[in-house]
Amino acid sequence: MRIPILKLHNYLLISIQTELDDNTAIQFQEDLLNKIHKSGATGIVIDLTSVEIIDSFIAKVLGDVVTMSDLMGARVVLTGIQPAVAVTLIDLGIHMKDVPTALDIEQGLIKLHKELGV
Amino acid sequence: MRIPILKLHNYLLISIQTELDDNTAIQFQEDLLNKIHKSGATGIVIDLTSVEIIDSFIAKVLGDVVTMSDLMGARVVLTGIQPAVAVTLIDLGIHMKDVPTALDIEQGLIKLHKELGV
Repeated sequence: MRIPILKLHNYLLISIQTELDDNTAIQFQEDLLNKIHKSGATGIVIDLTSVEIIDSFIAKVLGDVVTMSDLMGARVVLTGIQPAVAVTLIDLGIHMKDVPTALDIEQGLIKLHKELGV
Repeated sequence: MRIPILKLHNYLLISIQTELDDNTAIQFQEDLLNKIHKSGATGIVIDLTSVEIIDSFIAKVLGDVVTMSDLMGARVVLTGIQPAVAVTLIDLGIHMKDVPTALDIEQGLIKLHKELGV
């Protein structure tokens, strides 16, 4: 299955509401990068509210997605990171230090507005 | 699989980017009504840009979703209806007369703003 990517003005919104298996995660990475290229989006909100657990592979893919999007000129905000997911990320040494985060999609959009000034 | 429903302020955004089979459609109907109830959303945008074909069952479920959401106090805007889907809907006698439609999600949100005045 594929994770839907919504375009809203020059932002992309993604809400991951399914447990991510390896193939879905890789497909998502590819779809998102293509969509950034096609849409010229400058900001991306990835909402993880419904993701309850995360393994090391998915965590790596997520980290990669953020870095790759950045390379392509689109700023990523991660929102709704659950306590268990936060614990796993830190346990795995994935600190996402320079990645802005927020509580929910609304807050994420506000953060993008502030960062990008649009 | 389940179709993700994004909450943005008091609106719900749904982008259907997969061919809808019967079970997915029914599950979507149930998920959306629950989400309206839980979130108190007043407006809903359902984006069909990526739906290329539609059969009579799915068309009926979609029509039902619109009516049911209305009953629960949430206004639905359908966006991105493809030519082939429009043809099928009319062929099936599903006119969606009182349902506001728009070209894409942005236009759909503008329409909701105008209709609901919020």
